Amino acid sequence: MTQTEKPAQDPWLLTPGPLTTSRTVKEAMLHDYGSRDQRFIDINRHVRARLVEIIEGQGSHVCVPLQGSGTFVVEAMLSNFVPSSGKVLILINGAYGARMQAICEYHRLQSDVLQWPEDKPVDPGQVAERLAADSGITHVAVVHCETTTGILNPIEAVGRVVSEAGRSLLIDSMSAFGALPVSTKEINFDALVASSNKCLEGAPGMGFCLASESGLTATEGNSDSLCLDLYQQWRGLESNGQWRFTPPTHCILAFDQALKEFDAEGAVAGRGGRYRENCEVLVAGMRAMGFETLLPDSLQAPIIVTFKMPADSAFDFQSFYDGLSERGYVIYPGKLTVAESFRMGCIGRLGISEMRGALEAVRIVMGEMGVDSGSPAD
Amino acid sequence: MTQTEKPAQDPWLLTPGPLTTSRTVKEAMLHDYGSRDQRFIDINRHVRARLVEIIEGQGSHVCVPLQGSGTFVVEAMLSNFVPSSGKVLILINGAYGARMQAICEYHRLQSDVLQWPEDKPVDPGQVAERLAADSGITHVAVVHCETTTGILNPIEAVGRVVSEAGRSLLIDSMSAFGALPVSTKEINFDALVASSNKCLEGAPGMGFCLASESGLTATEGNSDSLCLDLYQQWRGLESNGQWRFTPPTHCILAFDQALKEFDAEGAVAGRGGRYRENCEVLVAGMRAMGFETLLPDSLQAPIIVTFKMPADSAFDFQSFYDGLSERGYVIYPGKLTVAESFRMGCIGRLGISEMRGALEAVRIVMGEMGVDSGSPAD
Repeated sequence: MTQTEKPAQDPWLLTPGPLTTSRTVKEAMLHDYGSRDQRFIDINRHVRARLVEIIEGQGSHVCVPLQGSGTFVVEAMLSNFVPSSGKVLILINGAYGARMQAICEYHRLQSDVLQWPEDKPVDPGQVAERLAADSGITHVAVVHCETTTGILNPIEAVGRVVSEAGRSLLIDSMSAFGALPVSTKEINFDALVASSNKCLEGAPGMGFCLASESGLTATEGNSDSLCLDLYQQWRGLESNGQWRFTPPTHCILAFDQALKEFDAEGAVAGRGGRYRENCEVLVAGMRAMGFETLLPDSLQAPIIVTFKMPADSAFDFQSFYDGLSERGYVIYPGKLTVAESFRMGCIGRLGISEMRGALEAVRIVMGEMGVDSGSPAD
Repeated sequence: MTQTEKPAQDPWLLTPGPLTTSRTVKEAMLHDYGSRDQRFIDINRHVRARLVEIIEGQGSHVCVPLQGSGTFVVEAMLSNFVPSSGKVLILINGAYGARMQAICEYHRLQSDVLQWPEDKPVDPGQVAERLAADSGITHVAVVHCETTTGILNPIEAVGRVVSEAGRSLLIDSMSAFGALPVSTKEINFDALVASSNKCLEGAPGMGFCLASESGLTATEGNSDSLCLDLYQQWRGLESNGQWRFTPPTHCILAFDQALKEFDAEGAVAGRGGRYRENCEVLVAGMRAMGFETLLPDSLQAPIIVTFKMPADSAFDFQSFYDGLSERGYVIYPGKLTVAESFRMGCIGRLGISEMRGALEAVRIVMGEMGVDSGSPAD
């Protein structure tokens, strides 16, 4: 296929993002809005207010959107909230925790790490011990769902030990936000970041930071980047409703529509419920064909599932990937450092019929490769 | 109008961006592509190669796209190309030059400035003098078209004095690239930055840096930001064709389509020709109604025109802006520090019929305000 041809139908994206979005979300991008236009300003105000409501943060928390991918707002959070006199303890059980460490190195921030194997959740008890042992630690940074494996980290329990120790919590909820509940009534955090393009099912192009107003106010002057300065971005939006620098207008129109569809589905409960159903159908179907998940069900977030590569020498991942892609299902390579694996996502505008379609495609491609995957009658 | 209503037809955006784009550019965003999909990788390769061709940089220059607004890639250019041991001379005759200075302050880069009034182009002679006087200056940064006023800066002449002095040139060609010619055969630069959303008429959401390969290679290790690290972004794209962090897939699909339409129009010559015609019709029509341009025609880039606010006390800018907006024409406030003004853009998917429509709307709104704007028979 040459670069100019489009497939008859877009493939279903069983990935951690970019994801399959609804037709109506994409159609919202068929309009050109001026960035200073009152209608556009109103849309931004509505999007920001709705995101604060999702965490029950009205009156205490604010939303600061930021251009770029999710990593841009993770970098902004760390480099703005951790002052040069501070020290951040980074909890690592996958690539996204490690990425936070890399960000701290770029910004020459004092940091320390606690590390767990990729198939183990972070342990709040160990966090408490480390905080007790090192009074220099001012912040703790944790990934909500580690997309490396799909593991769910216990952020509420981490939040409790961080609060009890009088430190500040920073959360990367990129791949979980909108599908798993996060409430300021249940967890005390200075900042949480996520993106338009994961469980909220908008288009990629912006992230956002949900921050306590007092915590954000305290970051004034901390940023070592003009573009990533969340305090100034917030002040700009509060002063006249406009972004400081050209916003991704089409992406924001799509995000506004995506939030309407999120609410129509029943917000976090409805969205998370569909993803859990997707995840259960996927895992059961894959196990029936002999695949093993990396994680036990108790640790699995309903976001993305890591499967171990089959031992059968007839199994070839590239052929598997290509065969599924030709049938309209895009999966994702593994990101584990410890084992050969691949990943299949449960998020985006997908339901159990797409999950069953993917399972059927897996069965066919396995058959073509000559890998035993059981029979439908098994 | 509430935030949920859409106008029957989108207004024409006579602004410096976001701009009016073609229907077909927007329709390219009706597809969800996986970021690791071969078709998407091919599109990125094509977009990057085409951008290098526009500056006749094949074999010497490379293209590094970056998520975010244009300012993100301006910040990346300055903070990556100017090493901590270097010193950049910033040429300022408007807000975008001043923004480059602000970026250097955030990054604690050594910088010096040469400043001119907003209605004067930068002066290559003065640049030569300063370079001769200060051997510590390693880089010179200049804005191609200062969107503050719409003034065209003589970047070729600046490039000559910078080259003769053995220093490196960094160009912010954000609002000019694609409409005004820039060739590596005519001007020697280390890096030039622009955006998907100005004269190339794509959607906002990404910028790009066109850099000499040797210059970019020399920036390895300079970046103080993970996301803004252009060298690593380039290495990532070269190694497997993929962006390091989630790309704005829909924006890139729109950009690919926009580049096809750019080529169909005759590339820089065709695009620039249409904008010049737009500019001439606009300026002639506005002058006929008594408006004065800030700049003489010889300094005016065919990008955006600054008009002085009429002296007539019956003229009220907010009413003028709102009246034009109601009639489907969005203009832009002034950004001058020295005089009351407003701006009207000539770029984006607009032709002389839209320019004439805007002029007719101006005449009507002026009449409603009771401002004398001459009569059609004048």
